[in-house]
Amino acid sequence: MRKELEKYFDRLWPINRSLTGDGNRETLKILSELVDLNIIEVPSGTKCFDWNVPPEWNVKEAWIKDSKGNKVIDFSNNNLHLLGYSIPIYRKMGLSELKENIYTLPDQPDYIPYATSYYKEKWGFCMAHNQFLKLEQDEYEVFIDSSLNPKGSMTVADVVLKGSSEREILLSTYICHPSMASNELSGPLVSAFIYNQLKKMPNRFYTYRFVFIPETIGSIYYLSSHGEELKQKLDAGLIITCVGDAGNYTYKKSRQGNSLPDRSVEIVLKQTEDNYIIKDFCPMGSDERQYCSPGFNLPVGSLMRTQYWEYPEYHTSRDNKDFISFEAIEKTILKYLEIINVFENNFHFKNTMPFCEPQLGKRGLYPTFSSKKSNTAFVSTMMWILNLSDGTNDLINISEKSKISINDLIPVLNKLIEEGIIMR
Amino acid sequence: MRKELEKYFDRLWPINRSLTGDGNRETLKILSELVDLNIIEVPSGTKCFDWNVPPEWNVKEAWIKDSKGNKVIDFSNNNLHLLGYSIPIYRKMGLSELKENIYTLPDQPDYIPYATSYYKEKWGFCMAHNQFLKLEQDEYEVFIDSSLNPKGSMTVADVVLKGSSEREILLSTYICHPSMASNELSGPLVSAFIYNQLKKMPNRFYTYRFVFIPETIGSIYYLSSHGEELKQKLDAGLIITCVGDAGNYTYKKSRQGNSLPDRSVEIVLKQTEDNYIIKDFCPMGSDERQYCSPGFNLPVGSLMRTQYWEYPEYHTSRDNKDFISFEAIEKTILKYLEIINVFENNFHFKNTMPFCEPQLGKRGLYPTFSSKKSNTAFVSTMMWILNLSDGTNDLINISEKSKISINDLIPVLNKLIEEGIIMR
Amino acid sequence: MRKELEKYFDRLWPINRSLTGDGNRETLKILSELVDLNIIEVPSGTKCFDWNVPPEWNVKEAWIKDSKGNKVIDFSNNNLHLLGYSIPIYRKMGLSELKENIYTLPDQPDYIPYATSYYKEKWGFCMAHNQFLKLEQDEYEVFIDSSLNPKGSMTVADVVLKGSSEREILLSTYICHPSMASNELSGPLVSAFIYNQLKKMPNRFYTYRFVFIPETIGSIYYLSSHGEELKQKLDAGLIITCVGDAGNYTYKKSRQGNSLPDRSVEIVLKQTEDNYIIKDFCPMGSDERQYCSPGFNLPVGSLMRTQYWEYPEYHTSRDNKDFISFEAIEKTILKYLEIINVFENNFHFKNTMPFCEPQLGKRGLYPTFSSKKSNTAFVSTMMWILNLSDGTNDLINISEKSKISINDLIPVLNKLIEEGIIMR
Repeated sequence: MRKELEKYFDRLWPINRSLTGDGNRETLKILSELVDLNIIEVPSGTKCFDWNVPPEWNVKEAWIKDSKGNKVIDFSNNNLHLLGYSIPIYRKMGLSELKENIYTLPDQPDYIPYATSYYKEKWGFCMAHNQFLKLEQDEYEVFIDSSLNPKGSMTVADVVLKGSSEREILLSTYICHPSMASNELSGPLVSAFIYNQLKKMPNRFYTYRFVFIPETIGSIYYLSSHGEELKQKLDAGLIITCVGDAGNYTYKKSRQGNSLPDRSVEIVLKQTEDNYIIKDFCPMGSDERQYCSPGFNLPVGSLMRTQYWEYPEYHTSRDNKDFISFEAIEKTILKYLEIINVFENNFHFKNTMPFCEPQLGKRGLYPTFSSKKSNTAFVSTMMWILNLSDGTNDLINISEKSKISINDLIPVLNKLIEEGIIMR
Repeated sequence: MRKELEKYFDRLWPINRSLTGDGNRETLKILSELVDLNIIEVPSGTKCFDWNVPPEWNVKEAWIKDSKGNKVIDFSNNNLHLLGYSIPIYRKMGLSELKENIYTLPDQPDYIPYATSYYKEKWGFCMAHNQFLKLEQDEYEVFIDSSLNPKGSMTVADVVLKGSSEREILLSTYICHPSMASNELSGPLVSAFIYNQLKKMPNRFYTYRFVFIPETIGSIYYLSSHGEELKQKLDAGLIITCVGDAGNYTYKKSRQGNSLPDRSVEIVLKQTEDNYIIKDFCPMGSDERQYCSPGFNLPVGSLMRTQYWEYPEYHTSRDNKDFISFEAIEKTILKYLEIINVFENNFHFKNTMPFCEPQLGKRGLYPTFSSKKSNTAFVSTMMWILNLSDGTNDLINISEKSKISINDLIPVLNKLIEEGIIMR
Repeated sequence: MRKELEKYFDRLWPINRSLTGDGNRETLKILSELVDLNIIEVPSGTKCFDWNVPPEWNVKEAWIKDSKGNKVIDFSNNNLHLLGYSIPIYRKMGLSELKENIYTLPDQPDYIPYATSYYKEKWGFCMAHNQFLKLEQDEYEVFIDSSLNPKGSMTVADVVLKGSSEREILLSTYICHPSMASNELSGPLVSAFIYNQLKKMPNRFYTYRFVFIPETIGSIYYLSSHGEELKQKLDAGLIITCVGDAGNYTYKKSRQGNSLPDRSVEIVLKQTEDNYIIKDFCPMGSDERQYCSPGFNLPVGSLMRTQYWEYPEYHTSRDNKDFISFEAIEKTILKYLEIINVFENNFHFKNTMPFCEPQLGKRGLYPTFSSKKSNTAFVSTMMWILNLSDGTNDLINISEKSKISINDLIPVLNKLIEEGIIMR
C-alpha cells in the first residue's frame, strides 16, 4: 500500500489547491482513480447560510524580478510563495513598497509561510525570512497573472457507499491547501484508501459517505445542501486531517462528547495504543466547527496524528514529504478500519435465553469436567456476553464492563450468534 | 466607602440588640438612613409554624454590687454582661448563689461570653473568667431592671427593589446580637451598602429582596408570611453573616447543592480568589436552616469571610472592632456585587445563526488575513459563545466549558448581542 | 453459639452431598432441627428453562485395590476421592489405564482435589499427587458401586418467614459439595443460624425467604418455579457462601450495582470494618449467576469472607475444619444481622413539620441555654434527620450525607418517630 500511497502523493504534491480553481479539479480527477467520486461545481456567489461561494481563483504565473531581470521569487518553484487568493498585479516598485506585501516567519527564518486573504482583495508573496533580509534596495518588477472569476465555481466531491442500513458514517477531508503534506495531502489520501478497502468489504451494515471539500466554505456549502439529511441519518463522522506523520494519535471529540465516534475511537485507542491524546471538543479547528455548530451538533470528531498547531512545521513549506511517513499513513488507514469495525459490530445484543444461563455444555461450549480451574477465557467471555446482552448494552459497553477487548469479544459474539443464543 | 462603614459601625455598636426590644428598633432606624426599609412590628405570641413570637424584652439597668457598694459588673459597660432575655431580679445573695448564675469561658479567661436563654425564664450575668476567679466571699446586691412584655412585639424589616423581572434574589441578614462585630454588625452593614449600590444600577433584571431580622425566630416568621411567595419567585438567596474580617471567603452551599447561588459564588471565587473554602450544606448554622428546611428547600447559601465557630473570638467580647477590617468589608461588598453581576447576566443564550458559523469577517469581527496564528483570544471567545449558545447553556456553563472567565466573556457576549448574532 | 455451630458442623461434615442423592436428604433433615424447612423432591428429568434435572446419584462403596488386595484408595475414608457423578464400574486394569481416570493437583501434591462430571458419563478417582506418584506397575481392581437413577429426584428446601410486609429478602445457600468446610458447610450453617435469630425478632417488616439448594441446577430450578414471584417481591438477596474463615469480608455486588443489598452491605462494612473488599458483579461465581441473569436481574449480591478462587485450599481436601473458625462464623452471623437491621430500618422518612425547624426546645429535645458550644451530637443528629427527611432520602442516604453512622442514627430516628415529628 505504501508504494501506491507515495505514487499518488507525488502526483498530487505540486498542484496549487485553494478554495476554488483548476488545481482542485485536477486533484479530484486524480483521486477519482481511487474513489468513485461524484464531482459537483458550485457556482461562485451561491448562498450557503450566512456565506457566499467566493469567485474562482486561478493563477498562471507569479514572480518578482530585480532590476537585472533575475527572478527573486517564483510561484512555479513553490506555490506557497503566492498569497492565497492574490489579485493580479503588474507593476514596478521600490523595496519599501514591495516589503509591505511580503510575509515571512521571523522565528522560523528558513520556512516559507502559508498565508491567504480569501475575503479581502489583496496581493502578496510569502518567503523565507532569511531570503527576505537579503533583499536590496532596487526597483523590482512584480507580476501576478491571477484571475478572480465571479462566474466561476467551487469544485467539491462526494461519494456514498451503500450498506444494508440507511444509517450513515461520514468521512470528511479537505482539498484546499497548496503543497503541504500532513496538513493537507495525508487527509485525502487516507480517505481515498479507506474507501478502497471498504468497497471490498462484504456485508457492510453502514452506508458510508466520503466528502472531499475545501475547508470551511466547503463544509458550509455541504451542510447547506445535505445538512438536514445528515441530521436524520448520521451515526458517526470523522474529519480526516493531519494524518501524515508518525506521532501519537490525537482524537478530538465531537461536541456531543459521548457520541458513537467518541466512544469507538476512545476504546480502540485504549485497547491498542500505549500513548495517545483525547481532547474535548473546542470550536476552533477544522470542519468539525461547522458539523458541530449548535444547529447541527452532528456526532463528528477528528482522528489525527500530531494535531495542527502542535508541530512547528504546521502551515509552512516544511510540512513536506520529509515530515511525513508512508508507513505511518498505512498504519493510520488500518486504525481507521479498526474503528470502522467497531461501528459495524456495535449492536445492542440480546440474549435469546435470558432466564438463567443456557446449558452451554450440551452445545459443546462448556467443559463437562469441573475442577478448580474450569473458567477459561473463552467461558468467561461467553458468560459476560450472555449476562450483558439485555438489549441495553452495545459492544463498547460490553467491552468496558467486562474489561475484555473488542478484538477478543467479536469472535465469541459471532459464535453465540451462530448458535442462536445471541441476536443482534 | 470605608469611612462611611466605620461611621455606621460606631453608631450601631453600643446598642443592645436581641430577638425583640427597643435596641432592634433603634438599629433599624439607623439602617433606614441607607435602606428604604419597610419596618414591621410582629406582636408577641404570633404563631409562626411550630413557634410563637416571644415576649418583648427590654433592659433599663443591670448590675451586681459588692457589700461596699462597688459595681462588680455593669450592663452599661458591656451589654454582653447580661444573659440575653434575663428576667428581672433585685435581691441580695452570697457568693455561692451568685456563682450559679454567672457564665464564663475558662479556656478564654479574658473574654466575656455571649449567652442567652430565650425560651426558658432565667436570670444571669456573663463575665471574664479571670474576673470571676477574683470574686470574694461577700454579700452581693443583684439588680436586673428588665421587662418581658407578652403584649410587645418583634421588630423586623424588609425592602423590595424592583427589577424588570419578577424573579427574585434574596439577601438576608440578622440584627439580634448585642455588641459583636463580625458575627452581627458586619452583616447588616454589608447588606445595607449592597442595597445602596444596587439602587443606583440601571436596568436591573432581577428584583432584590433585602431582609433584616432576628436569627431563627425572625426567619421563621418571615417564611410563615412570605415563604410561599419566595418558593414561587426565588432564583437565588444569600445569608450575609460573618463578613467583617479579612479571612478567606467561606461559602456554604444551599441544600440543593447546585443552585444558582452555589454555581455563581463558586465560579466567581474560583476565577478571582487564590484561597477560599466551599462547604456543603449542613443543617446547623444560621437562617439557611429555615430557608433550606425540607418544606421550602430554597436556593439559599451563605457567603462569609471566616465562618462562625471557626474563629476563637466567635460569640465573645473579642469579636469587636479590633477583630474586623473596614477595608475587608468594602472588598466583601464588591465581591457580592460581582456575584450579583453573574446573576444579572446568567441567561441561556441563543445563537440566531446556529447553522454553521456566521461569516464574522464581513462584520469586521474576524481577521481577513489568515496565517499560522490567526486565533486571537477575541476570536476564540466568540467561537465558544457561538458554539455553546444553543439555549441549554447559561453564562456559567459557557465559562466552565470554555475555561474563559466570566469577566472576559461578558464584553464579547455584549458585542455579539449588539450585532444581533446572540440573543438572551 | 460457637459450640452449637461446631456440633452441627461435625454431624454434617462426613455426608456425601452432590446435586442429588441421599446425602442431600440427610443434610436437609439435620438442618431441619434449626430451620422449619419445606423439603421438595424435584423429579429427575424435570425441565427448568434450558436445563433438565439430572438423574439421582447415590454411592454405596468405591475403592481401588492393588493385586495384593490392599485398598489404595477408599471413598469411605474421604468422599472427595470419588469423582462426582461417577458411573459404576467393576473391573481389573493395569496402571496406565487406571491413571487416565485419576485426577490430582501437581502444584498442591498433598491435597485431594474436588472434581465432578455432572453432565458427561465418566468414572474417576481423585487423590493427592504424592500418593499418585507412588503407584506401581500392578493389576488393580477398581470398584464403584454407584447408581444414576433417571426416576430419582433432586432434593431442595426453602422456608418463608413472614413479616408485616410482603416485600421479601432472599438468603440463598447451597448444599451440593461433599466434605468441604468454608466452600460449603459454612453457608448452610450461617443461613440456618440467621433464620434462628430472625425468627425470634419481633415486628419484622420484611418477609424472609431462605433457600437451600444444589448450586446452579438448584437455583435454575428454583427460579423456574419462583422466579416471577421473586421479580415481583424481592428487595434484596444475598448468596451465603465461603463464610467459614476469619479473613476480611468480600462483598460481590449484584448486577444492578446499586441495589439495596449493595448499598446496605457497603455502608455497614464501611462503618464497622477496617479492611474489606467490594467487587463489582461478574457473571462467574455462584448462584448469583442465575439470580442476576439478564431475564431476572434480581438485586442479589454475595457477602463472603475469603472468596472462592482466592484461597489455595479452595476445592480441595484442605478446605476442612482446620481452615475455618467458629468464632469467625459467629461474627459473620452477627454481621449479616447488622445488615438485616439496615434493611428493616431503611425507610424513606418524612418530616411531619417540614416548614422551618420544629421548636425542639419545648419538647425537651434542645438546650434552652445557648452559648458557644450548644451543638451536641444529639442535636446535630436530629437536625440532619429533620432536614433530610423529605421522602426522597432513606436511612442509607441520610447516613451518607450526614456522615453519621447508621448505629448513631437509628436511636435518634426512633425518638423523633415517637415524638411524631418523623414518619416512616
